[in-house]
Amino acid sequence: MPSLSVFTDVPLAQKLEGSLLKTYKQDDHPNKMFLAYSVCMTKEGQPWVSSMVRNIRLQIAQDPSLNYEYMPVMGMNSFIQASLSLLFGKNSQVIMENRLIGSCVPTESYGLIFQDLGFSVYEYSFWDSTKLCLDPSMLLDVVEVEVPRSETLYLQQAPRGCVFVMGNVTNCKLSQSQWIKLMSTMKSKRIFPFFDIPCQGLSTGDLEEETRFLKYFVSRGFEFFCSQSLSKIFGIYDEGVGILVVVALSNELLLCVLSQLMNYARALWLSPPSMGARIITSILCNPALQGEWKQSLEGVVDNIMLIKEKVKEKLRLLGTPGSWDHITEQKGPHSYLGLSSQQVEYLVKKRHIYIPRNGRINFTCINACNIDYITQSINEAVLFTKDSEK
Amino acid sequence: MPSLSVFTDVPLAQKLEGSLLKTYKQDDHPNKMFLAYSVCMTKEGQPWVSSMVRNIRLQIAQDPSLNYEYMPVMGMNSFIQASLSLLFGKNSQVIMENRLIGSCVPTESYGLIFQDLGFSVYEYSFWDSTKLCLDPSMLLDVVEVEVPRSETLYLQQAPRGCVFVMGNVTNCKLSQSQWIKLMSTMKSKRIFPFFDIPCQGLSTGDLEEETRFLKYFVSRGFEFFCSQSLSKIFGIYDEGVGILVVVALSNELLLCVLSQLMNYARALWLSPPSMGARIITSILCNPALQGEWKQSLEGVVDNIMLIKEKVKEKLRLLGTPGSWDHITEQKGPHSYLGLSSQQVEYLVKKRHIYIPRNGRINFTCINACNIDYITQSINEAVLFTKDSEK
Repeated sequence: MPSLSVFTDVPLAQKLEGSLLKTYKQDDHPNKMFLAYSVCMTKEGQPWVSSMVRNIRLQIAQDPSLNYEYMPVMGMNSFIQASLSLLFGKNSQVIMENRLIGSCVPTESYGLIFQDLGFSVYEYSFWDSTKLCLDPSMLLDVVEVEVPRSETLYLQQAPRGCVFVMGNVTNCKLSQSQWIKLMSTMKSKRIFPFFDIPCQGLSTGDLEEETRFLKYFVSRGFEFFCSQSLSKIFGIYDEGVGILVVVALSNELLLCVLSQLMNYARALWLSPPSMGARIITSILCNPALQGEWKQSLEGVVDNIMLIKEKVKEKLRLLGTPGSWDHITEQKGPHSYLGLSSQQVEYLVKKRHIYIPRNGRINFTCINACNIDYITQSINEAVLFTKDSEK
Repeated sequence: MPSLSVFTDVPLAQKLEGSLLKTYKQDDHPNKMFLAYSVCMTKEGQPWVSSMVRNIRLQIAQDPSLNYEYMPVMGMNSFIQASLSLLFGKNSQVIMENRLIGSCVPTESYGLIFQDLGFSVYEYSFWDSTKLCLDPSMLLDVVEVEVPRSETLYLQQAPRGCVFVMGNVTNCKLSQSQWIKLMSTMKSKRIFPFFDIPCQGLSTGDLEEETRFLKYFVSRGFEFFCSQSLSKIFGIYDEGVGILVVVALSNELLLCVLSQLMNYARALWLSPPSMGARIITSILCNPALQGEWKQSLEGVVDNIMLIKEKVKEKLRLLGTPGSWDHITEQKGPHSYLGLSSQQVEYLVKKRHIYIPRNGRINFTCINACNIDYITQSINEAVLFTKDSEK
C-alpha cells in the first residue's frame, strides 16, 4: 500500500441492534422463526398495510395537479395539522392557544440520539415477572424516590431534572389517581416528559383513548416533547413518517424553540420526504377514508386479541403449567410471554424460535401455520425448566 | 404563568439561510422576481421534472409485486449501485476492488453539519470579479500555500490536514497539469477531499465527463468522500435523494467505516425513504429509459445555453457597457452575472429582482416573460453605477 489510510484508526462500531435478527437469518434450520418484528404482520406473514393505502398511493401518482417541489423544512403543513389532531383532538386547548409546534421527523431510535448528544441513558421496564403484569407502581417508584446526583452510576430512580422518555405508556394502565401522583412528582422533581407514541390505536383500537394522558399533562401546565410515528399504523414502512411535537407554556417561548428546530431540520434533511406524508394526509383529511382507516386498525386489534386467545387456549389444551391469562390481559401487538430467561434460551437454542431475552414478542408474527409449533415449544420449554429445577 | 418554562433560556436561532427568499416573499411589488432558486425551472417558470418521472411514479404505485417494508438501513442496494455507476462508470477500478461504499443520505447543507460537528468552516469562491471568470489558479493558491495552524482565524489558505469540500469543481475547468498539481499538493499537505456533486450532467450534458476527475483521485491513491444529489437531475425535489460515497485504500478499512456509518444511519433515520430511490433505480436500470432521461438532461443544458445567449444579446442590443461573454462562458444553471455589489443592490432595491450579493443567479429562472425586464434592469444598474462613479 503506497500511502497510509486516514481510516486506519477507525474502530469497528459495536452493532447497536438487530443481532437477534442476524442470528436468525444465519440459522438454516427449516423450522426457524422470528417473533420480534417491530411491525404488525398479516395472517399470511406479510407486513400489514392499511387497505386503502395502495389506492391512495395510486391516486397521488395520477394527480396532475400535484407538484414535486421541495417541502417546507419542517414538513407539509397539512400533514402536521392532521397528525396533531390525531394526538390531541381537534378542539384541543394547546392547538387553540398556539402553544405547540410539530415538525416531520424520520427517526425512531431515541436512545441512540440521546447518547450521541452526551446524555447518560438508562432503561426501565415495568414488567413484573413474578406477578406477570405491567405494574404502574414500578413506574411511580422510578419517578418518585429522590436520588442525589452523585449516585447516578447505576440508576434505580430517575434523577431530578432528567428527561423521562415514556413509550407505550397506555399499556401500563395507570389509574386517575396514579396519573395525578405521577404528574405532581414529575413537577416537583422538574422531570421533563418526552412521550413516544409508536403505534397510536394498536392497543385498543380507540385512538383518542390512547393519547388521553397528553391532555392531563397539558391541563396541569406541563411542557413536553412528544414523538408520534405513523408508519406502523398506516403500513407505510418504507417512508418512516412521523412528527415531533413541542408543547410550551406560551406561544412566545415556542418561537425560539421553533427557530432552533428549523436550523436542525435544515442541516439534517433540508426538505423532508413527502410520499408518506401525502398518503396519510389524504386519508386523515377525508372523513370517509379516515373512518375506513380506523376500521382497518380495529381489524388489526381484533386479530391481535384473537391470536392471544388462541395461544392461551392451545397452552391450556397442552396442559402447560401456569396461568396464561397475562397474555390476553396485555394490550397491543407487543406483549410479554412471561417466560424466564432460561425458557427463552430453550426456545432460541433448541427450537429455533427467535425472541428477545425479556420474552416480549410481536403476537402478529404468530399465525395458523406456526401456532402449533410455537405453543408446543413453549410447553416443552416450561416442562424442561420445571424438570431441571427438581 | 403558574410555573417557569424550561424553554425560557432558549435563544432565538440565527436564521441560517433563506433570508433573501423571505424578503422576496414579503415584497408586494407586482414585478418582483426571485432568480436564486436552487432547482432548474421550465420556460413556464415551474420546477423542471424529467419527462418520464411521472409515468414511472405511476408504474411503481400500480406494481402489485412491490412491498413497502422497511428499507435496509443504508438504503436500497440497487439504487446505490446505480448511483455509483453514474459517478464512477460501470467498470471502475474502485467498484471492482470493493473499495467504496455508498449510503443513502437526505442532506445537502454540509457547512451546517460540519459546524455542528465542531469544525471551523471557511468558504472560498474562485470567481475572479476583475477578469470575470472562474479561476483555477485561485483554487490552487488556496490549497497550496502553507499556513501555520495558529493563524487560522481568517484563513486565506486551506490548512494541513483539513477536509476540503469541493462543489461544482468541473465548472472551474482545471487543465490536466492543474489537476496533477492540485492532487500532489493535497497529498503532501494531507488534505482530505470531500467532493459534492449537486447536479451531475447539468453543466455540459455529459455525465461521464463531469465526474472524470473522481477517477484521477482514485488512480492517484486518494481516499475521499463524495456526496451526490440526484433530486435535481431527475426533478424529484420532494424526496431529497442522494448518496454518500466513501472511497478507501482497501476493503478491510472500509468495514470499520461502514460499521460507523450504519450506526449513524440507524440512529438518524433507521430506514431511509424509498420513493425517490425507486423512481431513479427504475430509470437507471433500464437502458431505454436511461437514454431518454439523458436526452431530457441535454434539453435542460441546451435551454440554459439558449437563455444565456439571449441575455447576452439583449444586453448587447441595449448597449450595456462591458463585455458579457462571461455569461455564456460559464457552464451550468447557476452562473455569475459579473455585477458589483452596488449593482446587485440596485437590482434588489430599485427593481425588486432578488439575487444573491455575489451576483450568482439561476439562469433557468429567466424566461420569455421576464427577460426584457431583467436585462433592462441590469442595463439601468450598470449605467447608474457608472454615473455615480463620475
